Amino acid sequence: MLVKEACALREARERRARGMTIIDGAREIGRAMEARLPLDKVFYVKGRQEALLKRLSAAKIETIEVSGKVMEKLAYGGRHDGVVALATIPHIALKDLKLSARPLVVVLESLEKPGNLGAVLRTCDAVGVEAVLVCDLQTDIYNPNVIRSSTGVVFKIPVVCGASEEIFSFLKNNKIKICACAPAASQSYTGVDFKQAWALVLGSEEAGLSGFWLPAADTTVKIPMKGLADSLNVSIAAAVILYEALRQRQN
Amino acid sequence: MLVKEACALREARERRARGMTIIDGAREIGRAMEARLPLDKVFYVKGRQEALLKRLSAAKIETIEVSGKVMEKLAYGGRHDGVVALATIPHIALKDLKLSARPLVVVLESLEKPGNLGAVLRTCDAVGVEAVLVCDLQTDIYNPNVIRSSTGVVFKIPVVCGASEEIFSFLKNNKIKICACAPAASQSYTGVDFKQAWALVLGSEEAGLSGFWLPAADTTVKIPMKGLADSLNVSIAAAVILYEALRQRQN
Repeated sequence: MLVKEACALREARERRARGMTIIDGAREIGRAMEARLPLDKVFYVKGRQEALLKRLSAAKIETIEVSGKVMEKLAYGGRHDGVVALATIPHIALKDLKLSARPLVVVLESLEKPGNLGAVLRTCDAVGVEAVLVCDLQTDIYNPNVIRSSTGVVFKIPVVCGASEEIFSFLKNNKIKICACAPAASQSYTGVDFKQAWALVLGSEEAGLSGFWLPAADTTVKIPMKGLADSLNVSIAAAVILYEALRQRQN
Repeated sequence: MLVKEACALREARERRARGMTIIDGAREIGRAMEARLPLDKVFYVKGRQEALLKRLSAAKIETIEVSGKVMEKLAYGGRHDGVVALATIPHIALKDLKLSARPLVVVLESLEKPGNLGAVLRTCDAVGVEAVLVCDLQTDIYNPNVIRSSTGVVFKIPVVCGASEEIFSFLKNNKIKICACAPAASQSYTGVDFKQAWALVLGSEEAGLSGFWLPAADTTVKIPMKGLADSLNVSIAAAVILYEALRQRQN
């Protein structure tokens, strides 16, 4: 019964209803612990991930031994490294965000693929983005595929879902300027002074940004493209611009 | 029989034996044409991709109408946009490469995932990398998954497979300095003068670079990481460094 209930968390509806998610993998579970996420219980196969199991035991988190066969049922696609955890989904509201005086934040609109969201979150973690604000998400933030593709950093960075208008007001109230990434822009991203407080707004590769964010932006930028192709994957675009921001800030 | 032979090109062994590959999708086939790849024949479903079919007919390339059912068999994973092509695989030797006086080239070692190779090629196309040199490839360059994840630009950029020693000699003979990307490096990638001729060497995210390229490098660089995670996907690492190179060159 417990295993069946755990497996059900692969479904978005079930995650929403129970306010919980399922985490695959020792690295991801370890990062959830570092981010102080409340872990509910951890299923494990005997003899695997002993270092993690010691940390879990020291943190008084319930662990349940299961057979390899049961673990295959619990794990995504039947592939596992010996551990799967259940955790309570964090809820962060815009008003609870604590930002520095000149933060770098990222706004993502209409991302459809969990893998793209996860990949963007990894880069945001790496460059020190203070918050990721997500509008009109077509997936859920704590989708197990987002967790895995973010290598667990989704638990560390504050990620807030909201309506575009609400996020826009938040940025204005916090005096954070809006930089929208759009292929039709005339200015290259390298022309922006990223030492100031900026929100970088990105849409999906296929659809780009909607009619809301382009007119709302203080500036629009493009990434120069010298070849056959006319667009970059959103996770690549995010990395290029965010690392330019970090370069300027570290100079 | 023709359809069966086409489907067989999903297998690496068959592609090697026949020197051919299979290309899914109108965008990818269009880019193969722009790159002057010799297309052998194109299967299509009536009423789909009419603009492309006109171009194919003007170029006197054989087109074969098939039913939707047959197309589902031909297409990868049964998903298609109405066209699939067969093409002769180009063979490029190191000695045939024509490079500018101060080229930017990329060396990739031991990439296992076709999707990663394709994603790196997209960025190489976008920044104007002149050649991609691949050592110890665990997949084949014209794997249909590489074609798709590169959005077809794999046909445009010269991609050459070879042994590490052979590629090293080529770089030395052409006075191209070697910049290896490694997390343990002390220098940030932003410290390199990319206006010179450089080969950027990248390994897989999991394994990093082998014992060959680190000692062979003129310099090693890292990408600063400020968060929980200690590595970036190879396609992200490539994009961050290559766009810094482009920024310096355009300044």
